[in-house]
Amino acid sequence: MAKHKIALIPGDGIGKEVLPEGVKVLEAAARRFNFELEFTDFDWSCDRLVKTGKMMPDDGMEQLKAFESIFLGAVGWPGVPDHVSLWGLLIPIRRDFDEYVNLRPVRLFEGVPSPLANRKPGEIDFWVVRENTEGEYSSIGGRMFQGTDDEMAIQQAIFTRKGVDRILKFAFDFASTTKKKHVTSATKSNGIIHTMPFWDERFAEMCKKYPNIKADQYHIDILTAHFVRNPDWFDVVVGSNLFGDILSDLGPALTGSIGVAPSGNINPERKYPSMFEPVHGSAPDIAGKGIANPIGQIWSGAMMVRHLGYPEAAEAIERAIAASLVEGGPRTKDLGGNGDTKTVGAAIAELV
Amino acid sequence: MAKHKIALIPGDGIGKEVLPEGVKVLEAAARRFNFELEFTDFDWSCDRLVKTGKMMPDDGMEQLKAFESIFLGAVGWPGVPDHVSLWGLLIPIRRDFDEYVNLRPVRLFEGVPSPLANRKPGEIDFWVVRENTEGEYSSIGGRMFQGTDDEMAIQQAIFTRKGVDRILKFAFDFASTTKKKHVTSATKSNGIIHTMPFWDERFAEMCKKYPNIKADQYHIDILTAHFVRNPDWFDVVVGSNLFGDILSDLGPALTGSIGVAPSGNINPERKYPSMFEPVHGSAPDIAGKGIANPIGQIWSGAMMVRHLGYPEAAEAIERAIAASLVEGGPRTKDLGGNGDTKTVGAAIAELV
Ligand SMILES: CC(C)[C@H](C(=O)O)[C@@H](O)C(=O)O
Ligand SMILES: CC(C)[C@H](C(=O)O)[C@@H](O)C(=O)O
Repeated sequence: MAKHKIALIPGDGIGKEVLPEGVKVLEAAARRFNFELEFTDFDWSCDRLVKTGKMMPDDGMEQLKAFESIFLGAVGWPGVPDHVSLWGLLIPIRRDFDEYVNLRPVRLFEGVPSPLANRKPGEIDFWVVRENTEGEYSSIGGRMFQGTDDEMAIQQAIFTRKGVDRILKFAFDFASTTKKKHVTSATKSNGIIHTMPFWDERFAEMCKKYPNIKADQYHIDILTAHFVRNPDWFDVVVGSNLFGDILSDLGPALTGSIGVAPSGNINPERKYPSMFEPVHGSAPDIAGKGIANPIGQIWSGAMMVRHLGYPEAAEAIERAIAASLVEGGPRTKDLGGNGDTKTVGAAIAELV
Repeated sequence: MAKHKIALIPGDGIGKEVLPEGVKVLEAAARRFNFELEFTDFDWSCDRLVKTGKMMPDDGMEQLKAFESIFLGAVGWPGVPDHVSLWGLLIPIRRDFDEYVNLRPVRLFEGVPSPLANRKPGEIDFWVVRENTEGEYSSIGGRMFQGTDDEMAIQQAIFTRKGVDRILKFAFDFASTTKKKHVTSATKSNGIIHTMPFWDERFAEMCKKYPNIKADQYHIDILTAHFVRNPDWFDVVVGSNLFGDILSDLGPALTGSIGVAPSGNINPERKYPSMFEPVHGSAPDIAGKGIANPIGQIWSGAMMVRHLGYPEAAEAIERAIAASLVEGGPRTKDLGGNGDTKTVGAAIAELV
């Protein structure tokens, strides 16, 4: 029986509450589909930062290399500036492990009301493919004339041909496997006049290589408007680090809860571990109450087992999520219910 | 009778169709409220670029300085790269005339269905205050190793204390005049780690000076989600050039039509002319058909006369717009009607 080593990083806040539910469901799937997952816990978090001064130990990245995948909860806590906590843990993992694809499904489930009028399941069902290593999230930049009236901050966005081409290629390859075979590019070449025209050129080049994929592009401003007005237009939406980030929060908002949205930070070449985590954050406002929605974490687990080579296990988990939502099983507050995190996790594990 | 010199730049596509309707309504308002507007036409556009190689003449900016305000339609046309057309006309006006405030109301009118379920007029009624001269829209940057595998593009975002403080101050001053007295800042300091933490610091400083204004902040990704899920939370939303751009397309999308959304590019010190234009673009797909919605242009005219010192005239135009929408008067296709541009313009002028 194949065995896979998985690093568990619950992180902060509700991360610590939803991760165990994700594990519960993964264990059920492993039993049913005959593979083994060996979990190792890491307490890397803002708590740890406060105690030791570091989000993770100095050899943290080295330690993680021994694992096939990383299953993460959420990172960030009030009192610790986000750019310290995130850039001390989440961002280095994405970047140093070359997890250049951030893949995020957006799907309206039967039984979950959308904030959009008259939208039915099937009409909101697409993927955001987000570049995850370069672009607007750059460590290059800084401050001058600090503390004076002349103070300024600059930030360099960096787009390389290698970085842009590989995410576009992933998007087109991915669209080759979907029903609609359609890639939409998020751009802003009318305002961001150096990097975005470059992005558009590379997109045009890539289109030529995939004549059977329908391709179009929108500026990010009007694209957010189309997400609301015409979510049924989309299949695979590819965007830079920042644009993909925005679209992959807006998308799930259309489907009734950010609490259900999963993501995969993927190194397609499998040279390094990939990392799977819910889209939501550590949610200090509801942390500690046991009421967080575990579905984002559980669905991330489905993406992980698909990556590990068990598509049937992934589908079983996704079907269990869908069934739990339709059948009026327990649901958390964000979905209008009053079920707690553990009950929802157990119900889905049971269905698997 | 006071006389105000106004430069008219219809620009491209539907800009040429909606601008005359805006003028029609302005003339009605001037007659009724006893002031005079003297209009001068400028054919600066992509057409002109194709003929002469320039969007505007070399002394274009000099010419515009003679006017109190600029009333603009839309800029951009297929075949001309956006970063050429826009950066040859729209962006220089915004920037060289120090129109550092881009003010954009978001309002759901009675009689216009929202794409959001169960949202009524009054529940979507807020303002986007967008920084309009610096930030992510920067001319600094470029390409290296062009045409090779090592090609890269970089783009500098520039945030100055002067630039950030003045837009934040405008937002707080503006919120001092609203009912809710509430400013929301759009940030992304967890991902954009140099400029956005700086933005947050300046926001925190400004908050201290306005203890009676409620203030909060969200990262841009989750903020777009809240626009959809909780549009009633907002009053004055302040953002950088790029974030304000995104939010001021997403906002209007929630209110049923981008065709109604107006904007003012304002130099509050009145050292230079301010410019008023609809949020929509030149819309090549419907241009030439006479079916474009003129309300975005007309409402921009209302913002212009308020800026010129006629708040009652502005209110009369806004009331006329609202009345035309409720009373089942003629409406354009984007609002589910089959009225043409001219009929809608005439109906609103009549109501004024
Ligand atoms: C046309 C484009 C350059 C412009 C912008 O991004 O500022 C437009 O989207 C706007 O919002 O006025
Ligand atoms: C926490 C933050 C740095 C992160 C991001 O912006 O990438 C989050 O918003 C996400 O989408 O995973």
